[in-house]
Amino acid sequence: MDDLAAAIRGLAVRGAPAIGISAAYGAVMAVMESPGDATFREHSLKGIEKLAATRPTAVNLFNALGVQKRILEASATREEAVDSLLASAHSMRQSDLEASLSMGRAGAALLGEGSRILTHCNAGGLATAGLGTALAVAYEAHRLGRLLGVFADETRPLLQGARLTAWELTRCGIPVTVIPDSAAATVLAAGLVSAVFVGADRIAMNGDVGNKVGTFPLAIAAKHSGVAFYVVAPLTTFDPECADGSRIPVEQRERGEMDSFCGRRIIPALAGVFNPAFDVTPAELVTAIVCEMGVLRRPFSRAIAELTQRA
Amino acid sequence: MDDLAAAIRGLAVRGAPAIGISAAYGAVMAVMESPGDATFREHSLKGIEKLAATRPTAVNLFNALGVQKRILEASATREEAVDSLLASAHSMRQSDLEASLSMGRAGAALLGEGSRILTHCNAGGLATAGLGTALAVAYEAHRLGRLLGVFADETRPLLQGARLTAWELTRCGIPVTVIPDSAAATVLAAGLVSAVFVGADRIAMNGDVGNKVGTFPLAIAAKHSGVAFYVVAPLTTFDPECADGSRIPVEQRERGEMDSFCGRRIIPALAGVFNPAFDVTPAELVTAIVCEMGVLRRPFSRAIAELTQRA
Repeated sequence: MDDLAAAIRGLAVRGAPAIGISAAYGAVMAVMESPGDATFREHSLKGIEKLAATRPTAVNLFNALGVQKRILEASATREEAVDSLLASAHSMRQSDLEASLSMGRAGAALLGEGSRILTHCNAGGLATAGLGTALAVAYEAHRLGRLLGVFADETRPLLQGARLTAWELTRCGIPVTVIPDSAAATVLAAGLVSAVFVGADRIAMNGDVGNKVGTFPLAIAAKHSGVAFYVVAPLTTFDPECADGSRIPVEQRERGEMDSFCGRRIIPALAGVFNPAFDVTPAELVTAIVCEMGVLRRPFSRAIAELTQRA
Repeated sequence: MDDLAAAIRGLAVRGAPAIGISAAYGAVMAVMESPGDATFREHSLKGIEKLAATRPTAVNLFNALGVQKRILEASATREEAVDSLLASAHSMRQSDLEASLSMGRAGAALLGEGSRILTHCNAGGLATAGLGTALAVAYEAHRLGRLLGVFADETRPLLQGARLTAWELTRCGIPVTVIPDSAAATVLAAGLVSAVFVGADRIAMNGDVGNKVGTFPLAIAAKHSGVAFYVVAPLTTFDPECADGSRIPVEQRERGEMDSFCGRRIIPALAGVFNPAFDVTPAELVTAIVCEMGVLRRPFSRAIAELTQRA
């Protein structure tokens, strides 16, 4: 379980849904690694706390661990806990896979023939149990023959767009063009894309969206050029505890991620570095939110409240 | 002269004013390398053409070479041409140095006590003959004790902000914080800076601004957060031949600049790459243009026409 926690912290596992599901399996590992006596529950809870402390922004992590914690507390024996938690983790994985297919269909329905989309970071198969969130839309639109291509922001500092999204899409034969994050505004203003699709790490009850740094300026630029801006995320990414975006904690990551590349220093040691992993996009810049239940339109507050109460 | 042309093409010399002045000296080299007979003018003009073909966007290059070409054509002998062109290049260098000081003063007057500014790319001493354009403002505000610090966009793909701006500023003891380009919107929305200052590669007669890619989204984000967005550039950067930004040619650079770092590939070979070196910021997003004659306010068309006619 310590290895899994390290993998989440070190981004070997990343993408909000993938983090949540991995942590759910991590809870199973925590119980399996606990002593066979009556202290198993206490030891397992410590493991769950360790998993919860890996990264602060993706709410899927806390939603998944919350479910597992309640199951652990309700289990009479260690064996029962292992069985129930494992079944729960499998079920989360299966739900995420199905959610991905539903989001793909709902998102692709927003696109006409001959569409091109733009995306940021990686919200694909490498971020979820299924085909992804934003990229599930690309895969489905491609399957329907509607997609001419995808512009992928390279996504500094860790280049998830250049390295993961471009890899996923080329592997499936979808034409992809990688651009510097700062060229997205030019692509949008030139009318080269039909819509922007991004994933999310946490969605507040008013529709404010926490996602990879660079999502907020992309939403501003899309609005400036009159291009639709869609957020694609499963219900596990909504946070009933967050009234609005100001409550979304934004992880600050170490300067080493920006500072050097392959051991070569690119920022002078005397300069400071500000490296927030996420930003918050206000709901008013979001055209619609695509989840497995369909397409949510403004006012988001009402639509989200109805959905999360039902779920 | 071929070495100088290669240095401009390969970005060893970069920054619109520095490119213009270097090319002016390049014209002197072209004449010195020409044969001593009557064909010297023809040979020298070919050299000037070669210099003009190095990079398309910074108009300072064409403005400087235009002046040198007229001097060459008016020179009776090769010796006279060398003397006159050299005097002209020296004079451009001196003017740029003085312009830098004037722009610094005019820009710093826009800042109050305890200011923080944000800048993009490098518009400093490494881009001009003097202290720079946008950074001349930082140097002057620092000298006046008004500047708390500078946020510097790292400026992908070539990282001029991380490598050049951060180096220049730390060298002068000005606190600088390097951020990913996509974090600028967060910094602006959080109210952390008093104003944005950027340089320019070409300013059209209506005030549209061609500058390093990433300037346009920065201007949109500044407007979204109500932060002043200032462009700082000498008169040599204004183009009387460009009615508006649609006439500004934007250089497309090779994929190798984005593709790999220290020999390590970061974009799959099957993915396309779009790597425009510049973008165009519409005049309506620019709060004011600071030049050596003072601060130009909207409507820019009138202010710019008056200035360029006077010059």
